[in-house]
Amino acid sequence: MTYRVGFIQNQPVFGDIEANRNRITHLLEGFEADLLVLPELFTTGYQFASREEANDLAETISGPTTEFLTAFAKNKNLFIIAGLVERDGDAIYNSSLVTGPDGLIGRYRKIHLFDTEKNIFDAGDEPPPVFELGPARVGVMICFDWRFPETARSLALSNADVIAHPSNLVLPHCPQSMITRCLENRVYAITADRVGIEQRIPGETLTFIGQSQVVDPDGNVLVRASSDREESAVVEIDLAKARQKSINPANDLFRDRRVDLYRLS
Amino acid sequence: MTYRVGFIQNQPVFGDIEANRNRITHLLEGFEADLLVLPELFTTGYQFASREEANDLAETISGPTTEFLTAFAKNKNLFIIAGLVERDGDAIYNSSLVTGPDGLIGRYRKIHLFDTEKNIFDAGDEPPPVFELGPARVGVMICFDWRFPETARSLALSNADVIAHPSNLVLPHCPQSMITRCLENRVYAITADRVGIEQRIPGETLTFIGQSQVVDPDGNVLVRASSDREESAVVEIDLAKARQKSINPANDLFRDRRVDLYRLS
Repeated sequence: MTYRVGFIQNQPVFGDIEANRNRITHLLEGFEADLLVLPELFTTGYQFASREEANDLAETISGPTTEFLTAFAKNKNLFIIAGLVERDGDAIYNSSLVTGPDGLIGRYRKIHLFDTEKNIFDAGDEPPPVFELGPARVGVMICFDWRFPETARSLALSNADVIAHPSNLVLPHCPQSMITRCLENRVYAITADRVGIEQRIPGETLTFIGQSQVVDPDGNVLVRASSDREESAVVEIDLAKARQKSINPANDLFRDRRVDLYRLS
Repeated sequence: MTYRVGFIQNQPVFGDIEANRNRITHLLEGFEADLLVLPELFTTGYQFASREEANDLAETISGPTTEFLTAFAKNKNLFIIAGLVERDGDAIYNSSLVTGPDGLIGRYRKIHLFDTEKNIFDAGDEPPPVFELGPARVGVMICFDWRFPETARSLALSNADVIAHPSNLVLPHCPQSMITRCLENRVYAITADRVGIEQRIPGETLTFIGQSQVVDPDGNVLVRASSDREESAVVEIDLAKARQKSINPANDLFRDRRVDLYRLS
């Protein structure tokens, strides 16, 4: 059961949503896949100086960025998961939208906000979701969610084959740790990260590490992008592999869990 | 609050408990630390052809291996955590014993048995424990337990500063994944592995990967041994670092958990 998954690694210009969308159009020339993952906050940039600044760039889940991506999804017949500054009433979320050829499918609002994001965004209050996107069951988490093993675990136990992981990484550990996330859950993971530097706040220079990647359930890195260039990549994956939680005749990573003996609250 | 932790990486001769203990004595010459971790099944070797064979080499938790290590612990004034084929009535466990200058302190019976271990051992039916060993709170897990994020998480949430991890690793991923375990829980981890090859069963050659290591709560590998030599190492760690779950002014890795939104059963 093959499925083609890919990512775009971009370098947004802070605050210029239209330029950043147009740049994506350019990066997507010739892109063919079943699922495309774009970075966290891919149209706006990351380093908001205030909640008001984020609010000025926020859109509703049915806004122009969703329209833009849905048109592309129809045109290319694929599903897209992408970061969005989402406004809902007075709330602002660091969200990912999920869209496809038939229009908007859903969204996820980041539940583990990183550092000063807590001054900018409201935290999501719904579990990370899993969507049926064609033959694949795709779970969504955003960037810093990786640091909490419960996020990927919850998605995998909710039957995700693939974890789509829009990111804006500034710390070094995530690309390597996503290998552990795939090994422990036997899922695929697509981390779509950005590159470039933002220094909009004095004394706070953010260097984004790129290294967008696709990892398989055996912990193999199928593709990993550079740390400093805009790029795209597509790889073919085998969904059956992610549904096989056995690693040998005696061990099934889900059935072997000793839920009665864990202390996780 | 400094604490010196170390490991021995040995190459046991299968079934020759006395020779293996004597070898440890040799490897421990000049060893000075507060906590020593020895590999899983360090006196017996790993590849039992049958449960009967394991039973023949099994000892009670107060048996000669514990006596041997306790004498050493008294002599050197340190705590020791080490693998043992433990017999208790008709049951046989893949255990780790915990001893110190004042005698036996406790044990842990492996709860996630790997592959054909399921034909040899009974699975433990108690949660992975945490012991106060001097100023340190030390949790114990064994080898394949690493693959289940719940094990290290349970220990960390039970206030472990350090995870002692006796191992006999044959797959390649654990040393790297233990970095993730330390990053997600902000604990130290001491993986004591073995080296050498066992081919006691036709068609089943086991090559143990060594690479015993100590990792800190920031994911730094403080020391990592070779993949093919007997070795020991000691490093000084700072327990306060493991009790600080904050990674920046806004994020505390324990307080930020969204237990209400996880689906882990």
